[in-house]
Amino acid sequence: RFGLAEKEDQIGVVTGLAYTSVGGELLSIEALRLPGKGRMKTTGKLGDVMKESIDAASSYVRSISPQLGIKPPQFERWDIHVHVPEGATPKDGPSAGLAMVTSIVSVLTQIPVRKDIAMTGEVTLRGNALAIGGLKEKLLAALRGGVKTVLIPQENEKDLPEIPDNVKQGLEIIPVSHVSEVLEHALVRKPEPVEWDEAAEEAAAAAAAAKAGGEAGSSATAH
Amino acid sequence: RFGLAEKEDQIGVVTGLAYTSVGGELLSIEALRLPGKGRMKTTGKLGDVMKESIDAASSYVRSISPQLGIKPPQFERWDIHVHVPEGATPKDGPSAGLAMVTSIVSVLTQIPVRKDIAMTGEVTLRGNALAIGGLKEKLLAALRGGVKTVLIPQENEKDLPEIPDNVKQGLEIIPVSHVSEVLEHALVRKPEPVEWDEAAEEAAAAAAAAKAGGEAGSSATAH
Amino acid sequence: RFGLAEKEDQIGVVTGLAYTSVGGELLSIEALRLPGKGRMKTTGKLGDVMKESIDAASSYVRSISPQLGIKPPQFERWDIHVHVPEGATPKDGPSAGLAMVTSIVSVLTQIPVRKDIAMTGEVTLRGNALAIGGLKEKLLAALRGGVKTVLIPQENEKDLPEIPDNVKQGLEIIPVSHVSEVLEHALVRKPEPVEWDEAAEEAAAAAAAAKAGGEAGSSATAH
Amino acid sequence: RFGLAEKEDQIGVVTGLAYTSVGGELLSIEALRLPGKGRMKTTGKLGDVMKESIDAASSYVRSISPQLGIKPPQFERWDIHVHVPEGATPKDGPSAGLAMVTSIVSVLTQIPVRKDIAMTGEVTLRGNALAIGGLKEKLLAALRGGVKTVLIPQENEKDLPEIPDNVKQGLEIIPVSHVSEVLEHALVRKPEPVEWDEAAEEAAAAAAAAKAGGEAGSSATAH
Amino acid sequence: RFGLAEKEDQIGVVTGLAYTSVGGELLSIEALRLPGKGRMKTTGKLGDVMKESIDAASSYVRSISPQLGIKPPQFERWDIHVHVPEGATPKDGPSAGLAMVTSIVSVLTQIPVRKDIAMTGEVTLRGNALAIGGLKEKLLAALRGGVKTVLIPQENEKDLPEIPDNVKQGLEIIPVSHVSEVLEHALVRKPEPVEWDEAAEEAAAAAAAAKAGGEAGSSATAH
Amino acid sequence: RFGLAEKEDQIGVVTGLAYTSVGGELLSIEALRLPGKGRMKTTGKLGDVMKESIDAASSYVRSISPQLGIKPPQFERWDIHVHVPEGATPKDGPSAGLAMVTSIVSVLTQIPVRKDIAMTGEVTLRGNALAIGGLKEKLLAALRGGVKTVLIPQENEKDLPEIPDNVKQGLEIIPVSHVSEVLEHALVRKPEPVEWDEAAEEAAAAAAAAKAGGEAGSSATAH
Ligand SMILES: [Ca+2]
Ligand SMILES: [Ca+2]
Ligand SMILES: [Ca+2]
Ligand SMILES: [Ca+2]
Ligand SMILES: [Ca+2]
Ligand SMILES: [Ca+2]
Ligand SMILES: [Ca+2]
Ligand SMILES: [Ca+2]
Ligand SMILES: [Ca+2]
Ligand SMILES: [Ca+2]
Ligand SMILES: [Ca+2]
Ligand SMILES: [Ca+2]
Repeated sequence: RFGLAEKEDQIGVVTGLAYTSVGGELLSIEALRLPGKGRMKTTGKLGDVMKESIDAASSYVRSISPQLGIKPPQFERWDIHVHVPEGATPKDGPSAGLAMVTSIVSVLTQIPVRKDIAMTGEVTLRGNALAIGGLKEKLLAALRGGVKTVLIPQENEKDLPEIPDNVKQGLEIIPVSHVSEVLEHALVRKPEPVEWDEAAEEAAAAAAAAKAGGEAGSSATAH
Repeated sequence: RFGLAEKEDQIGVVTGLAYTSVGGELLSIEALRLPGKGRMKTTGKLGDVMKESIDAASSYVRSISPQLGIKPPQFERWDIHVHVPEGATPKDGPSAGLAMVTSIVSVLTQIPVRKDIAMTGEVTLRGNALAIGGLKEKLLAALRGGVKTVLIPQENEKDLPEIPDNVKQGLEIIPVSHVSEVLEHALVRKPEPVEWDEAAEEAAAAAAAAKAGGEAGSSATAH
Repeated sequence: RFGLAEKEDQIGVVTGLAYTSVGGELLSIEALRLPGKGRMKTTGKLGDVMKESIDAASSYVRSISPQLGIKPPQFERWDIHVHVPEGATPKDGPSAGLAMVTSIVSVLTQIPVRKDIAMTGEVTLRGNALAIGGLKEKLLAALRGGVKTVLIPQENEKDLPEIPDNVKQGLEIIPVSHVSEVLEHALVRKPEPVEWDEAAEEAAAAAAAAKAGGEAGSSATAH
Repeated sequence: RFGLAEKEDQIGVVTGLAYTSVGGELLSIEALRLPGKGRMKTTGKLGDVMKESIDAASSYVRSISPQLGIKPPQFERWDIHVHVPEGATPKDGPSAGLAMVTSIVSVLTQIPVRKDIAMTGEVTLRGNALAIGGLKEKLLAALRGGVKTVLIPQENEKDLPEIPDNVKQGLEIIPVSHVSEVLEHALVRKPEPVEWDEAAEEAAAAAAAAKAGGEAGSSATAH
Repeated sequence: RFGLAEKEDQIGVVTGLAYTSVGGELLSIEALRLPGKGRMKTTGKLGDVMKESIDAASSYVRSISPQLGIKPPQFERWDIHVHVPEGATPKDGPSAGLAMVTSIVSVLTQIPVRKDIAMTGEVTLRGNALAIGGLKEKLLAALRGGVKTVLIPQENEKDLPEIPDNVKQGLEIIPVSHVSEVLEHALVRKPEPVEWDEAAEEAAAAAAAAKAGGEAGSSATAH
Repeated sequence: RFGLAEKEDQIGVVTGLAYTSVGGELLSIEALRLPGKGRMKTTGKLGDVMKESIDAASSYVRSISPQLGIKPPQFERWDIHVHVPEGATPKDGPSAGLAMVTSIVSVLTQIPVRKDIAMTGEVTLRGNALAIGGLKEKLLAALRGGVKTVLIPQENEKDLPEIPDNVKQGLEIIPVSHVSEVLEHALVRKPEPVEWDEAAEEAAAAAAAAKAGGEAGSSATAH
């Protein structure tokens, strides 16, 4: 099944696009959410740059978590494992950043990812999409693998004239400049935001703690 | 006894299949469950890819733990040690993934593994079986070692025409596409699922904590 | 958008200036503040010297935190992630020190950084600005990228005579000798100091603890 | 005294057999039990394979601890230090596995090891003995060193015809296939098993905790 | 400002003397005390020997802390960061040991260091000063940089005859054999000792704990 | 002062003997005891073998701590720092083991080490002294440095005939086979043993805990 688009919408499974000396390839990215302590585990013979891009994706997701319906303290109760099969093939580079964000958002929100979409693009800590290399090879691999829609960084729009017409006809190519657009296209439904007023939460927690302490104190002296 | 199938059904002991420049070989994989803190230990001169495949196997098993009769918090009370003798021989690669999953499931459920079965196949975080190399050499080693049944990835069915007839006659070769099929064939009985409603458990825990806090509070103000 | 000044004032995003064998370049530095435990994470293929300059920037910022309106214990409740895109390009050296300080101060105070300013300069643990190399190339890159104002270390004023006149006319070049001047120019408003009398806080905490203990004790013996 | 059998039965001291390019050698293995936290320390310029064989030995011992009279939680209250003098000589390989198990069992049970016994053999996580190399050289070293009895893996029985007659006459050579046989021969007395019903212990602990919580709660509301 | 003596007395800033193939150089050493947990952070591209000399300096300072007015438990409430600018220049060697001690003592006691003093000398765990190399080059750099007084190890007095007369006239060169002499010359005032009777403190703490426990206990049984 | 015997009896300072290609040398070993958590720190550019010999020395000392007047739990309240000046000179090998033990025992018991004694010898986990190399060069360095007494391993007595007569006349050479003899000669007075019945202590602690729990419980239900 490798080298083909996914057969059904799945939670945490995203199709990325890799580019090697021998051409483009589909890259299946899998995230899993496990009961834990806020740790991030990565496997799949990933190079340092790809591991860092998972770190950046993870921090970005944490920074927008209320928009995803997740209160920040919940992060401390889960571990996330990101795996990129096939385990014996070395993978590296920052261009799976958008896919990493999508995969992590999907497992955290438990919203499936559309099965016939693929994506490529580096991501910044603010969720901006940065240009990638090997666009032609990646689009060819997407077409070959039965992908219908490909999200690419807006910064790569300048490379579209060099893409063969049959590729542009066979794929819906959507330039994006920010993760928000990626999630709109890739998730089967929109996450529901939750209110999170950090200052208010902190104040409430502090008040509760103070009250508990104070009462315990007054109890201790009163009876 | 090395190079031969196991003599009895054992908990945590699985026969994998390795493939080196000098041919195929049986690989005995041993897992042990110890009272602990959720740590994973691996020994046997394992390369990084094999260690990562144990990580992936372990995360997959955690993600399906209620189906195995294990409530997720129990993971924090055990350490798992996976050892691959012989300790002086370097081993690597992702193709023991299915065997790693089976071995870990066996020690966690305490259900023995059938003694005359061997298996090969990479595993993904979703439990899918991926193709491996060296199928012919691995099957020859299985036959030589007295194995009766071999589980191979469905993706490798395409390689079966190249396998000599005597090998195909001497072994029951079963293509599998997912861990669920592997466990059905390899374990001597089916694990019994347990109910685990994460949200409910959390709510219950929170309620209990709140009640304890509230009562302590009311006690403090009331008397 | 890379190689261009930022389009709007943003929290935690600072434009630095890099200098490589092929000339100067704008360097976008991003910091993010996340609920956490006082950890610092850095990504973007940073060399050891750049990582250490982030450490030094972070310690300096902690040492002046009351001037920024932040009580020291608050540091234990946040993680800071500093990322320098593009993730595949190796970056090193101490000359982004002033920019690192500015970025960290901005996320901690939530005060945006002026969009059309860039800066270069090593920073010491006392916030002093130290000289950097490649001033000409850096200023050229700033001009090219649409930057209006560039902060440089006073120690580099001696290099200004070698800078072409059109560069000096196109940019406001401001020599600085200390972080305090950098923050005045770079942040859109001044942070409001908070009082923090460490000894007083400690004494208060100790007194509170003692009182709690004492009362609990007297309660225990009195009723 | 090196190169000679021990002069008295000692707790935690086991004579192993090493095999190098210049012949066989006696290897004194020392374990010490210290008040601690369940940590394992190893010294003596040990290679990775020998360190892993100590890990495997340790996990095996933990897995059979009730048979040795040790309740698993006790492991968390001790550190074990395994040292192999002479500290400047590099040592490696898995063939001291049986000796490592014996040494660890001896310090944990405080039962001395017979002074005139030596042993060689790799150990698996299930306590099985695996074949080793250099049998002839090892037996010669044992004879030279005044050892009376040598335990060897049953898998090495096939090598006995090549051993010179004077060696076979001077030593009692005992093939073993499992650690249980090793301990019977090597320890001066048998460990006394203790009952350990893990599920029962857990249930008891949980009940105690629940009762404590419940009573505290009822106390809080009752008076 | 680098290569010049400090312009004012500062807390935690000490001028050391380095010696490279191209001559002597002033080395500005900066320490900062931050609210923390007793950790030591070092930056400035320091080699292993220089890092170890900071470790030794730190342990020595802890061992004499009551003489400095610091009760040992206070160490657990601070982190210390030692930075040696310029961050891109590799530095190594043990000869900044006396300067490290002085810098750490200054931040811990908050007593400034005299601005026109420089120093060189390895330090032992007992605070003894050991000889260093490159004395001539170091003294020349001190003179060039406007330093007035230089502390050197007494073991280096034997090298003074080789020092040019103008250097010896331009600098006050003071041989020292122990840190106590260094601190007398370098700090603007003497630290005030505090009494610390470890055994008494422990006994008091134990008694307090026992009393608290006992009272709680008697309370529990009495009413 | 390096290369000379110590001038006074000091706590934690021991003179070892090193042997390099250019001859023997005195090695000053310094240990310091600091309030802490049972950690061991080592500095002085020590190789792995010397670090391991410090580990072994430390474990041996812990194993005999009641004989030294130290109850094992006290180890958790101290850190020990072992430093071997001069910090820029690489040192390695196991032959300072006896000196390491002596230095650690001295700081833990606060009993000074005789100033005119030097020692060489590897140590095992049971405190046995093992043979070392370079005896002649080491004894020459001791004589040159003003040492009066040298402790050597009994296993090295066989090398004494090769030692020049003037060396044997100028030094008192004492062969030792165990640490107990070393401490008798090297410490200015004998440590006073303390009783430590591990089982009794544990039982007492458990009883105290049970009583505290039980009383709290009965209080909760009784009033
Ligand atoms: Ca492929
Ligand atoms: Ca890129
Ligand atoms: Ca084999
Ligand atoms: Ca594969
Ligand atoms: Ca670029
Ligand atoms: Ca610089
Ligand atoms: Ca030897
Ligand atoms: Ca074997
Ligand atoms: Ca072997
Ligand atoms: Ca310089
Ligand atoms: Ca030196
Ligand atoms: Ca020397």
